[in-house]
Amino acid sequence: MNAIAASTNRKVNVPLGDRAYDILIGPGLIARAGAEIAARLKGRKAAIITDENVGPLYLNALVESLTASGIASSALVLPAGEKTKSFEHLMTACDKVLEARIERNDCVIALGGGVIGDLSGFVAGIVRRGVRFVQIPTSLLSQVDSSVGGKTGINSRHGKNLIGVFHQADLVLADTDVLNTLSEREFRAGYAEVAKYGLIDKPDFFAWLEANWQSVFSGGAARIEAIAASCQAKSDVVVADEHENSQRALLNLGHTFGHALEAATAYDSSRLVHGEGVAIGMVLAHEFSARMNLASPDDAKRVERHLREVGLPTRMSEIPGILPPAEVLMDAIAQDKKVKGGQLTFILTRGIGQSFVANDVPASEVLSFLKEKHPQ
Amino acid sequence: MNAIAASTNRKVNVPLGDRAYDILIGPGLIARAGAEIAARLKGRKAAIITDENVGPLYLNALVESLTASGIASSALVLPAGEKTKSFEHLMTACDKVLEARIERNDCVIALGGGVIGDLSGFVAGIVRRGVRFVQIPTSLLSQVDSSVGGKTGINSRHGKNLIGVFHQADLVLADTDVLNTLSEREFRAGYAEVAKYGLIDKPDFFAWLEANWQSVFSGGAARIEAIAASCQAKSDVVVADEHENSQRALLNLGHTFGHALEAATAYDSSRLVHGEGVAIGMVLAHEFSARMNLASPDDAKRVERHLREVGLPTRMSEIPGILPPAEVLMDAIAQDKKVKGGQLTFILTRGIGQSFVANDVPASEVLSFLKEKHPQ
Repeated sequence: MNAIAASTNRKVNVPLGDRAYDILIGPGLIARAGAEIAARLKGRKAAIITDENVGPLYLNALVESLTASGIASSALVLPAGEKTKSFEHLMTACDKVLEARIERNDCVIALGGGVIGDLSGFVAGIVRRGVRFVQIPTSLLSQVDSSVGGKTGINSRHGKNLIGVFHQADLVLADTDVLNTLSEREFRAGYAEVAKYGLIDKPDFFAWLEANWQSVFSGGAARIEAIAASCQAKSDVVVADEHENSQRALLNLGHTFGHALEAATAYDSSRLVHGEGVAIGMVLAHEFSARMNLASPDDAKRVERHLREVGLPTRMSEIPGILPPAEVLMDAIAQDKKVKGGQLTFILTRGIGQSFVANDVPASEVLSFLKEKHPQ
Repeated sequence: MNAIAASTNRKVNVPLGDRAYDILIGPGLIARAGAEIAARLKGRKAAIITDENVGPLYLNALVESLTASGIASSALVLPAGEKTKSFEHLMTACDKVLEARIERNDCVIALGGGVIGDLSGFVAGIVRRGVRFVQIPTSLLSQVDSSVGGKTGINSRHGKNLIGVFHQADLVLADTDVLNTLSEREFRAGYAEVAKYGLIDKPDFFAWLEANWQSVFSGGAARIEAIAASCQAKSDVVVADEHENSQRALLNLGHTFGHALEAATAYDSSRLVHGEGVAIGMVLAHEFSARMNLASPDDAKRVERHLREVGLPTRMSEIPGILPPAEVLMDAIAQDKKVKGGQLTFILTRGIGQSFVANDVPASEVLSFLKEKHPQ
């Protein structure tokens, strides 16, 4: 174990009773994965699931680290991209994990971004009705969001993430070294979720980001701090409402609009990636809240200014190609799973860091807002 | 609501905190399904999953009952048989449930035996990461066993039930009228699981069955009593150890041998159905316990006498066709999921109603026992 690397690590615990787990954040964690896993799990077998982009970069280092700690591993390399969250790949992955004779105390390791994490967590949740699960998120987005909180799943032709389980990880290793190989665009997309935690209920964190975002982008201590603060924020929400019966929905700030935009661009990442949809969606959520006289229009402007400053898109018109009409976006919103008894549920806000769950937003208001923002 | 029918009903509660649920047992429950569901669940939509054998008999009555209580329903009729517990049918069923726009408070209803219950429960557990679930078991086996306790799943080429989730039902309706249409063979197969509860830890119940089995087979109050006692026994075990970390494994008495025999007959129900495998398996478990000097050989004889009296097979030689050699049966046992860290886990017994979990059974002893019982 590298003492210098370890000393710069941050640890966030997710206190879920007998399913509590640690999120370790810092450099060099892939090289220490074997030791960290062996210290926590009883099993000595692991099935790694990764993709064609991440595998070539980090799979060897991970396997070596596991082997050095006496953990035998097998690996499945899946195609990269959102389409991998399908029944077909789920079936392949389950078969591979069973073939590796993974038992309940052994683990599935997700080595990749959100797609790999969501799929692998689902696999870990259903093979033998649940085996241990370790997340090694390799994108900023997955380090601060999807790898924490136990939501797993695949997509359906009816929508994203409609099939899955809640299955908490046993350990999350957020190796900040891997972020150095991300493209600027990917890093920015992840940053949208970092900013989101400030906008939900941490106005001071949002102000800190406004002042320090350059340091977060350039790496080092500020970056680790921002990731740790984000994981802590997510952990707090998840612990308060693990299965999204109420307040966990706050994490969807910007996501209802964002998902509709992702659907409208057919999940084509050359046009829009998730974090970009969330950035535009957060601006829309603040503007819609202002339109409903809930918040000041100045707050929406402040959100837009910061996101634009870091280089994120903030307007639907910035999405390359032609968007479908507002009515089609509205249909996508109504299809979204955050619908209860036919009523539209939205995360709205009373200002920076003052978001709340609104269960009774009239569809007609949303539609006319969308028409205004996206004239044909 | 039929007051006479209601008065003959029995109710067993499964006290799992905020996931507690009722099992209602008695005649006329399909006709009352709508009222019982409407009284317990908030949603007013249901997706029914049934099979080609059961659908034609009870689907209309169920839909009428739901409609009368203001619950809109759709139905999916799948092929009957163990092969339906596949990824392919899981995918079809998830799609159908999403198409019906089932939300979290709406329900999936399983109308059928164990296969339909296991598959439907899995669907209910993963669509939108969990929707409500109602079991209407139509075989004796599923009424006393699989519909209670939340185990759901499908089969893999690596073995039975290897992919699934724990997802407790919100209500179980065991309509005893439907048992009148079962074949004698099917009823007997279910009875093996009834007898199992006596053999696990209720010697008085086993003695009661020895004295009253004819009344249980002929229907009426004794049958309802036997089903209620079985559901209560299963509930007790499940509540003590929901996720099978320890004592829930007792429910597998007879099942390790039984599963191996089912695998050896390729799940061909013309040769062996699950309950028959369990009957032979329970006799083998008692005989193996005697061989290990844990129990008296007289107990094994008593078990065999009773199961034989009700018409169940008790010997491997009674299975039609050729069985593979003992070594192949042994492989199937080792493949079974009740293996921890390479050690064989068996449910053994110290006598009638004195079963226990043994984690360190030597494979060599099991193999020589099998060779003795099944000479080539």
